[in-house]
Amino acid sequence: MNVFYLPTAQLGIISFPEEESKHIVKVLRMKEGDCFCVTDGNGSLFDAELVDAHPKRAAANLTNQRNGYDIRDFKLSIAIAPTKLNERTEWFLEKATEIGIDEVKLFASYHSERRVANVERFKKIVVAAMKQSVKSKMPVVEDIVPFEKLVKQDFDGQKFIAWIDDDVKEQLCDLYKKGENVMVLIGPEGDFSKEEVQLAKDNGFVPVSLGEARLRTETAAVVACHTVQLINQMK
Amino acid sequence: MNVFYLPTAQLGIISFPEEESKHIVKVLRMKEGDCFCVTDGNGSLFDAELVDAHPKRAAANLTNQRNGYDIRDFKLSIAIAPTKLNERTEWFLEKATEIGIDEVKLFASYHSERRVANVERFKKIVVAAMKQSVKSKMPVVEDIVPFEKLVKQDFDGQKFIAWIDDDVKEQLCDLYKKGENVMVLIGPEGDFSKEEVQLAKDNGFVPVSLGEARLRTETAAVVACHTVQLINQMK
Repeated sequence: MNVFYLPTAQLGIISFPEEESKHIVKVLRMKEGDCFCVTDGNGSLFDAELVDAHPKRAAANLTNQRNGYDIRDFKLSIAIAPTKLNERTEWFLEKATEIGIDEVKLFASYHSERRVANVERFKKIVVAAMKQSVKSKMPVVEDIVPFEKLVKQDFDGQKFIAWIDDDVKEQLCDLYKKGENVMVLIGPEGDFSKEEVQLAKDNGFVPVSLGEARLRTETAAVVACHTVQLINQMK
Repeated sequence: MNVFYLPTAQLGIISFPEEESKHIVKVLRMKEGDCFCVTDGNGSLFDAELVDAHPKRAAANLTNQRNGYDIRDFKLSIAIAPTKLNERTEWFLEKATEIGIDEVKLFASYHSERRVANVERFKKIVVAAMKQSVKSKMPVVEDIVPFEKLVKQDFDGQKFIAWIDDDVKEQLCDLYKKGENVMVLIGPEGDFSKEEVQLAKDNGFVPVSLGEARLRTETAAVVACHTVQLINQMK
């Protein structure tokens, strides 16, 4: 089933912007009467039938508005420093979107390998993964902020900082409480500085381990994301 | 800390094959007296000191033989059909090695997109990930076998088949018992045929879901791997 993203989706006749129209009519060669699915990225899925196969402003009739299976009663936010190789961050974004995430925050820290990010490209990857995995809600990707600013932002939920240290004895999977909002900070490739860890602690972040395995930054971020989802999913 | 893989590693003076010697001496420019770590891929890690910086047969003195942190009392085996895009299977191999896996079995099934695999390349990816994540045991990667043959192989532990179907109500995370050996079959990009699911059931595989999220094949495989690890890791 093909899924298209239209932020302005609503019941009735809607028209697609030029790029999406071209994709529907020219690339996928859809004809009037063909059916597909539309997500508004804001929690709703629709059934859609193409009513005008116009290559620049295709129109469809949207019916059966419903909540997606990805509507959750908790919020999952992961903060990560973009990796030296962009493809590793992009891989995290794709996988986290598939597994389920609400918010990705990017930060620059003392040992960061990368201090600027192509957020528009990151958002495109999230949109593609959202469509591919038939999600109704689009994860938010926020632009890079300094670590000092990130840890001072308000967050209503459990706050954790995951990094590698022998002194960190507690695990995310043991401390996270099912159903609660949660934000996890993931150490950059050069890890957090001691001052950054202290700053996070001072701002209410609890140090956690993700287990004994030594994980790359992007793997740690996916593991943190799946840990929270799994705990919510278990009976 | 640099980690090198030497299947014949043992306490005392050892020498590296030409390719690894070149990497140590020419690429990393290590000098006599420099220290690193050696894994034998069979459960042991060693401290190593370079004693001869020969570019074709570098020698090191190995001390402090110890078990790696990745020694487990259960066996985790994942069976997957290689994806159309090789990089997706390779990504699974890298991430599963980081997270922890004992065995990857490859199979060709009715809807498989790819019926041959470059297993030597896959093994190189596993070796690189093992070194990068300082593992002492190298996951085994087996060459492709037909699905019919795979499901008839002996396996001493819990056996599951994960695929997408409304009738599959039980989840891997609820059925897998901590500490037990486990093998999980992951559906290919075209999913299993009904006959294949029946054949797996006839051979003792229990149908499970990985949750409501629609996951790509390689994401499902990583999620299954992490599910088993997390259940064993939780207090």
